[in-house]
Amino acid sequence: MESKGISKAIIVRLPRYYRYLGELMEEGVERISSGELSERMHVTASQIRQDLNHFGGFGQQGYGYNVRTLYEEIAKILGLDNEHHMIIIGAGNLGRAIANYGNFEKRGFIIDGLFDRDQRLSGVDSRGMRVYSMEELEPFLETHMVDIAVLAIPKTAANEVARRLVRCGISAIWNFAHTDLDVPDNVIVENVHLSESLMRLSYTLANQKADEHMACGEKMSDG
Amino acid sequence: MESKGISKAIIVRLPRYYRYLGELMEEGVERISSGELSERMHVTASQIRQDLNHFGGFGQQGYGYNVRTLYEEIAKILGLDNEHHMIIIGAGNLGRAIANYGNFEKRGFIIDGLFDRDQRLSGVDSRGMRVYSMEELEPFLETHMVDIAVLAIPKTAANEVARRLVRCGISAIWNFAHTDLDVPDNVIVENVHLSESLMRLSYTLANQKADEHMACGEKMSDG
Repeated sequence: MESKGISKAIIVRLPRYYRYLGELMEEGVERISSGELSERMHVTASQIRQDLNHFGGFGQQGYGYNVRTLYEEIAKILGLDNEHHMIIIGAGNLGRAIANYGNFEKRGFIIDGLFDRDQRLSGVDSRGMRVYSMEELEPFLETHMVDIAVLAIPKTAANEVARRLVRCGISAIWNFAHTDLDVPDNVIVENVHLSESLMRLSYTLANQKADEHMACGEKMSDG
Repeated sequence: MESKGISKAIIVRLPRYYRYLGELMEEGVERISSGELSERMHVTASQIRQDLNHFGGFGQQGYGYNVRTLYEEIAKILGLDNEHHMIIIGAGNLGRAIANYGNFEKRGFIIDGLFDRDQRLSGVDSRGMRVYSMEELEPFLETHMVDIAVLAIPKTAANEVARRLVRCGISAIWNFAHTDLDVPDNVIVENVHLSESLMRLSYTLANQKADEHMACGEKMSDG
């Protein structure tokens, strides 16, 4: 596995390749050329060849890529060849949505439990998933190997909970709280800031509308 | 508003500036220097000056930025000075999580309704939110002005629903389904692919671990 020296831009694109290769496998496709993959993914064939060449060049001229080999190599690079154990802090709608998303488990992300400060949720199974109280967090982490903690709680509580997690040895946080976490540099944080995504959509909408409006104006002055 | 010619990289950073400026306003801060903002946001002061200079240079040497002015200018650029009307397709946990997230409404994203193919959910109010059946989608869109449709449904149904939305004049889709939508180019799609975010986390975790492991090995061969 020669993942050293792979640029961040390629890493960002790898999960998408992984998804398309997974779909090809489901369809029973064994080999694919960069041209065919290009058409499906709406990426240029030369971009695909450039990206995938970083992983040892599985593509053979005239033969294309072996779908399963490439899929498995990318899985290794992404760390998907190991199981990951996760807990979810926050058993509200978002926490439950993540807990119930079957695809994560299929890819080796095992959810060991949900935690919520609302005592009324404790012990209740949501599709076989146990919900613990926040008081149980430290004892739980002492007796379970957990890789990743998911923060699906409001921003006001996020930093305090993050500190508790880091004290218990959690080294990776998937953060859905709408704030930047103040944690030591060696703790990995991947943010999902939904508001920011929605604002990018709103920006594009506003600017497309502005363009359309201008075009209409121009047309009218012509007529 | 001089938003023409702003690079995409700056647009991606704007929502984060907007969030920090909003927090400063909540704290009652009226002016802030690029140095202070830099410390809060963990971005260099020169990056901040460069980014914010694109919007007419609100910062005055020695006086800093007027927090409210900058906040409102960024809001305009992001299209947040207009109300947006949204519908959510999928009234499962994820759809409900988005519907119940109060901050969207505070920023002018009004959710007019949820739609679900599960008839048992129809009519049920989830915190005052109406859930419609999928049969009601077209009649609803004929009588309501909706800007944005949120897809919080499995990937198998995503493209068919997207086509129905586009036929009804929806021009912006916030897509949580784990697939790329096949829609005309003039339709704006902002994807939130949670699996891909989790894989980036997993990649960083795998590579940090690999590094740590290597460091341990080196130490041992030294001793």
